[in-house]
Formats: sequence, structure tokens, C-alpha cells
Amino acid sequence: MKIKIQVLVTALLLCSGMAMSQPPRGPLVISPQVQADKTVTFRYLAPLAKEVKLSAQFEKVPLAMSKDAQGVWSVTVGPIKPDIYPYSFQVDGVTVMDPANVAFFPNERFKASLVDVPGDSPLIHAMRDVPHGATSYEYYPSLEGTTGSVVVYTPPGYDQNPTKKYPVFYLISGTTDTEETYFKVGRTNLILDNLIAEGKAKAMIIVMPYGNIAARVAEQKGGSKPADPMVRDGDDAVKRAKDFETDLLTKVIPYVEKNYRTLNNRENRAIGGFSRGGGQTLRAAFGNMDKFAWVCSYSSYLSPTEMDRNFSQIGTKADLTNKQLKLLWVGVGDEDFLYKGTLEFIDYLKAKNIQYKSRITGGGHTWMNAKQYLAETAQLLFQ
Amino acid sequence: MKIKIQVLVTALLLCSGMAMSQPPRGPLVISPQVQADKTVTFRYLAPLAKEVKLSAQFEKVPLAMSKDAQGVWSVTVGPIKPDIYPYSFQVDGVTVMDPANVAFFPNERFKASLVDVPGDSPLIHAMRDVPHGATSYEYYPSLEGTTGSVVVYTPPGYDQNPTKKYPVFYLISGTTDTEETYFKVGRTNLILDNLIAEGKAKAMIIVMPYGNIAARVAEQKGGSKPADPMVRDGDDAVKRAKDFETDLLTKVIPYVEKNYRTLNNRENRAIGGFSRGGGQTLRAAFGNMDKFAWVCSYSSYLSPTEMDRNFSQIGTKADLTNKQLKLLWVGVGDEDFLYKGTLEFIDYLKAKNIQYKSRITGGGHTWMNAKQYLAETAQLLFQ
Repeated sequence: MKIKIQVLVTALLLCSGMAMSQPPRGPLVISPQVQADKTVTFRYLAPLAKEVKLSAQFEKVPLAMSKDAQGVWSVTVGPIKPDIYPYSFQVDGVTVMDPANVAFFPNERFKASLVDVPGDSPLIHAMRDVPHGATSYEYYPSLEGTTGSVVVYTPPGYDQNPTKKYPVFYLISGTTDTEETYFKVGRTNLILDNLIAEGKAKAMIIVMPYGNIAARVAEQKGGSKPADPMVRDGDDAVKRAKDFETDLLTKVIPYVEKNYRTLNNRENRAIGGFSRGGGQTLRAAFGNMDKFAWVCSYSSYLSPTEMDRNFSQIGTKADLTNKQLKLLWVGVGDEDFLYKGTLEFIDYLKAKNIQYKSRITGGGHTWMNAKQYLAETAQLLFQ
Repeated sequence: MKIKIQVLVTALLLCSGMAMSQPPRGPLVISPQVQADKTVTFRYLAPLAKEVKLSAQFEKVPLAMSKDAQGVWSVTVGPIKPDIYPYSFQVDGVTVMDPANVAFFPNERFKASLVDVPGDSPLIHAMRDVPHGATSYEYYPSLEGTTGSVVVYTPPGYDQNPTKKYPVFYLISGTTDTEETYFKVGRTNLILDNLIAEGKAKAMIIVMPYGNIAARVAEQKGGSKPADPMVRDGDDAVKRAKDFETDLLTKVIPYVEKNYRTLNNRENRAIGGFSRGGGQTLRAAFGNMDKFAWVCSYSSYLSPTEMDRNFSQIGTKADLTNKQLKLLWVGVGDEDFLYKGTLEFIDYLKAKNIQYKSRITGGGHTWMNAKQYLAETAQLLFQ
């Protein structure tokens, strides 16, 4: 009843020609509200809920929220270290995005919103008053006659300079992420805009593919939904990894090099990725040394067993490897559940005399770290 | 506890280098699952919930769902008429997106997912095996030194033909929608790809701006969150509408015409919009007859009062209006809450001898209709 009355009132208040896509729902909720002192207030309208908590990546455990007379639950936290954090609400045990917040985390399994706590001076991923590149959603002919989707960043000035050619960085997100995640959560475009404006990174094209090619092919060809990418039964996992590599090398790269002004040799191709994307990166790089000279593994690794079994020449011919790779960069947080494995991978590289750069940070398996690693390595690529 | 054990098991199952962004959460839920007979099964994991309902725009009222032994709620509906529909779950009264579904509805107030029921032959908004354009997210210098964001569709072949120039269609979404909505929900890119492939639409650039400029300026300049765009107090609403028009004419159009290969005259500029975007369209067009020759109002109108007060010359000089406008198109559904107002607007045009095309469809104030109107009018523009 109350909602119907509200719709009527709103309709009466409408300026002619002003209309809404959907009726309003209760009082205006402002969330998240970031204060100047870096405290943040989160709010969620749920008059009938018994318990609402805030689950956020700047807190170890969910925080209780309290309800006001209008049914708006809220909690104020912080001050919070400036960064962009995923968060969600737990409403009587149900995880929901923040309906008042447009900034969301593209992912195939969970729904989270993003809160941006700005720094005293703008952080490297912040919107600054600098020339901006463009981020383009495109389709390309993929494996088995399917249509793939890919997101492509072009640097500032790309369209104004129709003869200049650029190096390309292939950048792969994690398990259950989508091709949008490095753009929407990783802020690839703003990080590069800012680094390029500061003269710290070369102008480059960044190509962000979708990681779970096998599932997409199954969906388009068979009409069935993707298999669970979390399940690691041997043969299927190996096939999925191989499908990604085949798609990248035989479909994505040819599409990009046909449709963009690219420098088409290994010295002008970099590859990097976060989490599963880091594993895909290492496999694609070590298995195709003629294709990529710059390699970045963020919060990921290959095991010594897999290295010896599938990529033994990387270690046995370390001199050649070192000559071929302009950069082999490995970064991980010391709270990452892959920390130990990554240290073993670094030890393997060391034992084999393979040149690498490593970066151990604080924090866990998070996109806060993924952004930091991108900002750091983008300054090294093609230099 | 259970979650911790699951994380451990999954970690053990991980292939080296394969990692997840976030721990898995319970059994794999496939939702929505569209069957060949056009029935659809929706599923939602919520073992502790007391009641879960499906709220979908193909149903008048929310549908009860039932829970299985694993705590997965489900309901099968249909057969459903092929189209793309917004839906959400109501979990003990809390509205949530479908966590198993990546396709979402970008909006500033509500969260909804999208289900795509395909036609027996591919619908006009379906992914078909045709040449595809690109959809680009860009920033432009906006009002008062702020940075605006805009989404731009370029047709197939745009990059392959570096001398060809194109007409431009400015396309504006509704209240609380964002600059993404016409892309993600309206499928502007696929509709145009398909129409162009069939030879039914001219190759054109489509520019999708953000509608609520005043709020964005307030946010960037003042650090405060947007005012509720639903509230229609007179002065503020008028200022907001004017800000949009000023931004479009003095910022967006110059940016587009500088950065894209555009045909820069009124005969090669169209403007259209849905809901609030339709009102913004009519005001921008009637107030700037030197700028746009093609005008499309989807599910929207201006009142006779506003027409007489602000745009009287449109009616008093109908001969000039008819000479200037290549197209004035008005469409609305007969269940739309703006249906009556739109009929009054059409009557006004008729009474003033202003030439127009109108289209009354079934359905309400929905993006199913918005897509249909776009597909219909795109075939008329620049012809």
C-alpha cells in the first residue's frame, strides 16, 4: 500500500516528460558515504530484516549494523586506508550488493560493491585531470565458431595520431572474474592514464580477455551453462587452461593486431594476470617464448613439478630464457593463501638462475594488491 | 566452519597457479537456466531463508520459490515470450540480484539481473554471426571543470575505413539509469550490428551520455552524493534538465565531433531517449532546432502546458518545424503509466499540424519496449 501511494505521489510530482524506469523504493539511502576524515558510513534499507552486517575487505570480520526508525541500517567505520575495497551486506545471512551504489565488482559467482576511499593526494588509480584513454568492449571470432568478448584500453591520443603503433599488454583477470574486472575493479584505464601523464609508463594498448573460454564455448555451442571453474578435476582443468592459451594465441592476438595499430613482435608484447590469470600468463609465456618478452605474475605461480614437467627448458636453458625475457615479475601478498606456493616458485627461479623481479607486499589475495602490482609493473614494460 | 573446510579442500584441489579471487560458496547454482521450450528455471542458494520469491518483468506478481535439501530455492516459469527481462529475488523481503548471473541492470537505485529468452530465430538484439561494432567507455571535460563519462558505439568497419565520416545518434537513458544502461540493457550495439548487417540501418555512431549531470557535478565539486533524482521540486528539476542540455550541447557534442569522424550538421545528428531521457530529448531538440533533425521520444512526452510555455514556436510555426525535422517519432506502451500523457502530447502535435510518427505498443514502461523502439527508429534515421 505504502509503495502504491508513493508511486502515485511521485507520478504527480513528475515534471512532464520526466519519468522513471522503476518506482522509487523508500527513503533515499546514501551509501557508501566517505567522510573527509576517511571514515565511511554504509547504509542499507531493510525495515523487516532481523540482522544486517557489513562484510568488507578492509575488515577481518563482518561488522554489525544498527537500524533507525525508518528501517535504514547503518555503520560507520574507519578511518580506512585509502584504496578501493569490495564490500557487501549480509542481510539475515543473505549476501547482497549495495543497491545505492553503482560501483560493482563484475564476477560470475559473487556480487559485491566497491567503496573508493580517496587519498590526501590522488592515488594512482584515481580519476585525475589528465588526458584519458578509452576502454572498448569488442567481440572477436573465437574458438569453434563462437563469439568471444574482450575489453581493450587504448592510451590517450590513440585516435589523434593515426600512424603511431603501440606495444600491447595482455592482462588476464582471476577465476570467476570476467573480462570487465580489470577495468571496473582493477582501474586499468585510470592507472595507465595517470602513469602515462607522469611519464612513468609507455603509452600502450592493454587487452583484457575473458579467462574461462572453455565454459563460454560450451555455453554457446551446447546451450549449457559453464561448468564450475572452481572444480579442478585433472583432464578438464588442463583442457580449460589449454583452451584459453589457444584462444589467446590464435584468436585474440590476431584480432587485436588486425584491428589496432600494434607493434607485432615479442619485444612489444607483454602478458600478465592476477590469480588464475597469473597461472594462465606463466603457461602462455613459458610455452610460447617466441610470443612474449615481458611476463608478470600477480598473486600466482606454477609449481616446481609443473615447471619441470611442462617447461623444463626454461630452467635448463636459463641463459636463453634470460636473454629472451625482458621481464619476469612475480608479486604476492604475505597474507595470500598462495603466498607459500609463490615463494616456492621464486625459489625455483633462483635455483635455476632465471632472472626475475619479485615483490612481496602486505595483504592477501585481493584486488587492492592486484592494482598495486599493475601500477608497479606497468612502469617497467617496454622500457 | 564448513566454509573454512571448503576453502581448504578447494585449495588442495587447485592446480598450481590456478587460484580464485574469493572462496567458493556452497554448491554450484545455475541460474537462470533457459530451456529449449522457453521455460526458465531460476535458482537461489539461501539455506537459512524463510521465503524466497522471484520478481520478474514477465510476471505481474512475485512468484513463490521452493527450497531443496541443499538450500537452493527454485522455480520454473513459462514458456516465456522471447525477450530480455529484468528480474530479482526477494529473499525474506530483501531484493537481491541473481549471484549466479553476470548479466545485470546498471542503475543507481535498484539492482536487477537480466534473463535472455532467445527467439526461434535470433531476435534483433541477439548476438548473431555478423560484423560487430565496438562500444567504448570514455571521459570528457564536462561542466564546471568536472570529468564526465560517456559510452560510444562505433559501427562495424569504423577502424578499417579511416576516412569515412558518420552521422551521430545521441541516445539518453532514463531516471536512475546510467550511461551503461542503453548498452547493457538496451543492447544498442547488437541491435545496430544486426540492422546494419541486414542493410536496414545506416552505419552510425551512437553516443550514450549520463543523464543526471547536475548530481555528478555536485558530487565531484562538492564531495556530496547526488540529490534524489526522483524528487521533482520545481527549481531544482528545471536546473537539472538545463544542466543536461548545456552539457550535451557544449561538452558532449564538441568532444564527440573532435574525437570521432562525424558528419557535423543537423541533418546528420539525431537525438532520442527513454523515459526521462525522452523528456530531455524533446527539450534539447525543440530548444535547439539548429542542432538535430531527427528526434525520437520513447515512453515519454512533454505536456501541452510546457510546449506552449517553452516551445510555442514549434506549434505556431509548424511549417518551419515540419521543414526542419526529418523525423519526430513518439512511441509508448498502452500499459505505461505515461501512456495518457503521451497520448495528450500526440494530440497536441496533431492539433498543431506538426508532422510526427507514433507507435502505440503493448506493454508498459519497460526496457523490452525501449529495445523495440530503438530497433524500429534506428531504421528510419538518416535515411
